[in-house]
Amino acid sequence: MKKKLLVIGAHSADFVWRSAGTIAKALEEGAETLVIALSYGERGESGELWKEDPKRSVESVKVIRHAQAQKAADIIGTPIQFLDWGDYPMIINDERVEQLTHIIGDFEPTVILTHSEKDPFNPDHPLAFQATQRARLLSSGAGVPSAFKNIDPPVWYSFEPHQPELCGFVPDTFIDISSVFEKKVAAMAFMGAQSYLKDYYTELATRRANHARRISGKKEIKYAEAHQSQVPRVTNTIF
Amino acid sequence: MKKKLLVIGAHSADFVWRSAGTIAKALEEGAETLVIALSYGERGESGELWKEDPKRSVESVKVIRHAQAQKAADIIGTPIQFLDWGDYPMIINDERVEQLTHIIGDFEPTVILTHSEKDPFNPDHPLAFQATQRARLLSSGAGVPSAFKNIDPPVWYSFEPHQPELCGFVPDTFIDISSVFEKKVAAMAFMGAQSYLKDYYTELATRRANHARRISGKKEIKYAEAHQSQVPRVTNTIF
Amino acid sequence: MKKKLLVIGAHSADFVWRSAGTIAKALEEGAETLVIALSYGERGESGELWKEDPKRSVESVKVIRHAQAQKAADIIGTPIQFLDWGDYPMIINDERVEQLTHIIGDFEPTVILTHSEKDPFNPDHPLAFQATQRARLLSSGAGVPSAFKNIDPPVWYSFEPHQPELCGFVPDTFIDISSVFEKKVAAMAFMGAQSYLKDYYTELATRRANHARRISGKKEIKYAEAHQSQVPRVTNTIF
Amino acid sequence: MKKKLLVIGAHSADFVWRSAGTIAKALEEGAETLVIALSYGERGESGELWKEDPKRSVESVKVIRHAQAQKAADIIGTPIQFLDWGDYPMIINDERVEQLTHIIGDFEPTVILTHSEKDPFNPDHPLAFQATQRARLLSSGAGVPSAFKNIDPPVWYSFEPHQPELCGFVPDTFIDISSVFEKKVAAMAFMGAQSYLKDYYTELATRRANHARRISGKKEIKYAEAHQSQVPRVTNTIF
Amino acid sequence: MKKKLLVIGAHSADFVWRSAGTIAKALEEGAETLVIALSYGERGESGELWKEDPKRSVESVKVIRHAQAQKAADIIGTPIQFLDWGDYPMIINDERVEQLTHIIGDFEPTVILTHSEKDPFNPDHPLAFQATQRARLLSSGAGVPSAFKNIDPPVWYSFEPHQPELCGFVPDTFIDISSVFEKKVAAMAFMGAQSYLKDYYTELATRRANHARRISGKKEIKYAEAHQSQVPRVTNTIF
Amino acid sequence: MKKKLLVIGAHSADFVWRSAGTIAKALEEGAETLVIALSYGERGESGELWKEDPKRSVESVKVIRHAQAQKAADIIGTPIQFLDWGDYPMIINDERVEQLTHIIGDFEPTVILTHSEKDPFNPDHPLAFQATQRARLLSSGAGVPSAFKNIDPPVWYSFEPHQPELCGFVPDTFIDISSVFEKKVAAMAFMGAQSYLKDYYTELATRRANHARRISGKKEIKYAEAHQSQVPRVTNTIF
Repeated sequence: MKKKLLVIGAHSADFVWRSAGTIAKALEEGAETLVIALSYGERGESGELWKEDPKRSVESVKVIRHAQAQKAADIIGTPIQFLDWGDYPMIINDERVEQLTHIIGDFEPTVILTHSEKDPFNPDHPLAFQATQRARLLSSGAGVPSAFKNIDPPVWYSFEPHQPELCGFVPDTFIDISSVFEKKVAAMAFMGAQSYLKDYYTELATRRANHARRISGKKEIKYAEAHQSQVPRVTNTIF
Repeated sequence: MKKKLLVIGAHSADFVWRSAGTIAKALEEGAETLVIALSYGERGESGELWKEDPKRSVESVKVIRHAQAQKAADIIGTPIQFLDWGDYPMIINDERVEQLTHIIGDFEPTVILTHSEKDPFNPDHPLAFQATQRARLLSSGAGVPSAFKNIDPPVWYSFEPHQPELCGFVPDTFIDISSVFEKKVAAMAFMGAQSYLKDYYTELATRRANHARRISGKKEIKYAEAHQSQVPRVTNTIF
Repeated sequence: MKKKLLVIGAHSADFVWRSAGTIAKALEEGAETLVIALSYGERGESGELWKEDPKRSVESVKVIRHAQAQKAADIIGTPIQFLDWGDYPMIINDERVEQLTHIIGDFEPTVILTHSEKDPFNPDHPLAFQATQRARLLSSGAGVPSAFKNIDPPVWYSFEPHQPELCGFVPDTFIDISSVFEKKVAAMAFMGAQSYLKDYYTELATRRANHARRISGKKEIKYAEAHQSQVPRVTNTIF
Repeated sequence: MKKKLLVIGAHSADFVWRSAGTIAKALEEGAETLVIALSYGERGESGELWKEDPKRSVESVKVIRHAQAQKAADIIGTPIQFLDWGDYPMIINDERVEQLTHIIGDFEPTVILTHSEKDPFNPDHPLAFQATQRARLLSSGAGVPSAFKNIDPPVWYSFEPHQPELCGFVPDTFIDISSVFEKKVAAMAFMGAQSYLKDYYTELATRRANHARRISGKKEIKYAEAHQSQVPRVTNTIF
Repeated sequence: MKKKLLVIGAHSADFVWRSAGTIAKALEEGAETLVIALSYGERGESGELWKEDPKRSVESVKVIRHAQAQKAADIIGTPIQFLDWGDYPMIINDERVEQLTHIIGDFEPTVILTHSEKDPFNPDHPLAFQATQRARLLSSGAGVPSAFKNIDPPVWYSFEPHQPELCGFVPDTFIDISSVFEKKVAAMAFMGAQSYLKDYYTELATRRANHARRISGKKEIKYAEAHQSQVPRVTNTIF
Repeated sequence: MKKKLLVIGAHSADFVWRSAGTIAKALEEGAETLVIALSYGERGESGELWKEDPKRSVESVKVIRHAQAQKAADIIGTPIQFLDWGDYPMIINDERVEQLTHIIGDFEPTVILTHSEKDPFNPDHPLAFQATQRARLLSSGAGVPSAFKNIDPPVWYSFEPHQPELCGFVPDTFIDISSVFEKKVAAMAFMGAQSYLKDYYTELATRRANHARRISGKKEIKYAEAHQSQVPRVTNTIF
């Protein structure tokens, strides 16, 4: 079975905090991966840069954020593509959905990983969800021959938002990322001055590992990422 | 990884209609399986026998139902155990939960499959769910050393009820049972005069296969069973 | 089609506040009705009597509550039966469920009307719901011939609780009770010194009528009662 | 009471699979009906035509789809109107909502039947729901005299989507379509080469009939369609 | 702690019916308040004016509605600002969200009060909710220094819609408005010929007071307004 | 206003992990507090003791657990009462509910804090919720004079379970416990060898503080506990 993972983040750092471990695990098992950063998070999520120099230009922030995310992607070993749609507010329109539809159609992912449907603390995350949802359906079609290229409908997950309970996020898939956790730490280290987030997500990985051990009895899990599936799993085994 | 599947049905035929394919698939991949029939469904679900002879005794119905379920289990190749708790009404009490706790503790399943939490059309199905839920927790404990034997918490699914939407059943796991479907048909054939149910569940398997194909693009799926997971999946791959 | 309405209230006054109009409408169209009062509400809901005389006996309260409810039932024109199960706390056990099962089996209602599933302000209402739910299923069975008498499964509604939103109550059926509202007023007048509740439920009937007019455009509705169905409607017309 | 049924489908075949029986029943009882096809489903749902000839033009597909749907409507006996909004992606904008508002205002339906709110397998169905929801509110207004024509708010149902549980579809109204099922079969036969869908929906009608019999005890139901109401029912009888 | 209340209503009378008491209470405790009327409700909610004279112009209706709302605001003692976005249909676009973002950023409210997320009886209320939700997030940002002014995220409530259960409205905050109820009555009196709504909302205030007394035991509450919080409460006391 | 906090834990350590900060804050503002430990958690949650000596008696475990919880309560400064109902399985019956009803009636709490309604990882926590729910209603009655003592209905919260999302726990109240966090740390230190839980809950307090800061902008919050209210808040201010 083909293994291709597409990660779509609203801002350029989202893929690191929320799914760097899952991407690294996918690469570890030989999968092909691609990260899409819809924006640089240049206006709303670049606090450290604006604090350093409130007079800097938006463009200069983008350049820095681009470099940081590229380094993080490199350390994990995944390609990354930047769409530069702008943030706070991100604007979604028919052309952008079409752009994303083409990206999905070209990459033909077997799994897509993106934001949760709801996020009362972030205006851009639900838009990224909606754009992904629509582009995924338009690229895979109705499951019958059609006027356009149809790919097999990718499996589809939401990664963990900042305040999960308030986003209606209920994790149903815990990925053991113990074997690749050092790569995630290294990738997080490139994310500028946000050392508090590095601690925050390191701790989250140990908490989710605690949960995963309690759920499964698998005592060897040290670090985990939690996701929520958006479509059923089709398999040939109950185990 | 150990593969042990425990199926718990309220009435002696439930495991056939709702999970014979999943059991056969588990056996196909070398798993150990066990079916528990909490009752014979002797009062409420033996329509064909009571119609034949309204004066027959409850005990005689149990004997026939036992034989039918045993034959169905044999054809699938799974052991089955009958607890004879009575039906319509089934009564759950602390002793019965303890009995079930011991069965789970002794068998040490990695997966449990039982009824859905809610069923507005059946008084016994939700009781079977509750007894299983409680016994599963009592046998696996709090995940720390304790005063009693602790097993690893089994994964836990609900199989499909008769009117899924009205039972709050949302399938999230489709098992491709194409390779073993003949066994399910053969097992269903032993379930007395209920040929209409055989047709009903054959058709259901094709419908769920249609859904599974639409979800996944896997065109080779001809028959499927749908289940709903009750606890998250802990894994080391997103694929 | 046979029209038989069974109303089951936890306390002897519930049927008046929550469904007197619906009962009177049913009688108006020639239906047979029966009210079951599981208890007299003698301990928890007889405030006016305990305030008058804190030293009176529980038995004397029951006598008064029986007489009040009987008069209310008479004015509406419906038989009423008192089970005297006790209140605050009401105790439900297997014998009581069996008693209720027999009542349902004997009366063979086409519609049952009772409390809502949840009520965070009343300990007895959800128990009445549970007992009714279980007895209804046990009297109607699995829809196949069985060891016991089977009636056709009655349609089943919850009537309106005191704080609907906090009870998860979402009305989906508004009954226009304008033509019989005087009977409801007269019945409420028998409910002792609780004149404030008479005002409360008169006003509720006008509010629900306002809602019913907004929903349907039927300007002639002056008074309404709102219920929530618990099972789907089976019909041969979409109108 | 006036009986006027408006059916709004995203693609030109939706009304056949999901509601041909309900439309035929409405006509049987003397109602006036109108079907609106928002698009021809020419790009995403015309698999058989694109498979026959991948080089054919979108316009030629529309012509064929128009003719098929017209024949199906004729056999049922209902007028049908095609809006040709395009599919995959369907685009909804203020002008189109206004167009639909005028259609609703002119026809003055008492019942509207359309798609479900959610459909994770189809990008156009939820858009049809949203457009209908908005147009219905704009045509019926706030229930007070206003600057524009106000109709009585139509009753409003969703018909059954392809994977009901995953669309949040919970049927609460089952229509017995036994007496008109032959018409539905004849209408489905015009839907091109999709004989597999004819079988699929024939079987669905027998399954929903099985459910309807279990719910109601009405043994005479052979075929049924299931819908979900979007607004409460206002009536003068509980039966 | 700064106390600043911003009330955002879709139509110019919404703030009176749904929150006049809460605004007056806020003023009573020294808070600063501001009401935003997104439209005059000139087309859909000015029934009395259109009935008087069906030929009057939309502009003349706006003038009257402006004057009425201004007088109501004056009697309560709150500033009010009219955005004149139009109603039935209200149109929300990026510019309007930006306008609202600036208003929020300038006023720096500690609490925002607006419509509920869902309202199946009104096309404009959910749009007001969405615009407020988005503008609130854009004005408060991600909680880190950014390219634009960031205010502390305001607490955020929905006030009560007309048919609460059908709007998914579950009140979790009851405000005792007994001490200012006369002001609400006086404000309602300015709302033209809609005396039936004055009665309706007076009665609603007594009903919500009844609920508040039952919930809390606070017998002194005579009138109350009920709201639903949209974000958690952060406090230093459990009492 | 009287301030009395009652905390009810299924096992003797629950109050420490989940609410020691909230209790200490209540004491800091002069409230009266009482902790009820329904059991010692002697069988299921005393891992460290059973690991030390698998042959020790259940009674000896209880003695140690009693002493640990007493010391933790002492350091916080709250009385604690042990009901010794047994764990794994905890058994709830009418007598025990009555016992708890008397405790609530005697203490007359203004706030009750206990477990969440659902916990798929613990068999005893939901039972503690149910017993508390029922006892609370029986002690406060229907809000009218009655045959038994009636207290004002206490406000009622659930504290945070171990895996919040899987327990349906949505925090809506964050308590800033920064000023008393040292006491919580000291209390946790008495909980035997479970140093990993001390770290776990210290980290949780910083995470919940992070969330509280993001929600409110209150930068001074260093440690927080999160709870979920079970009944609405009745207040005279929106701030």
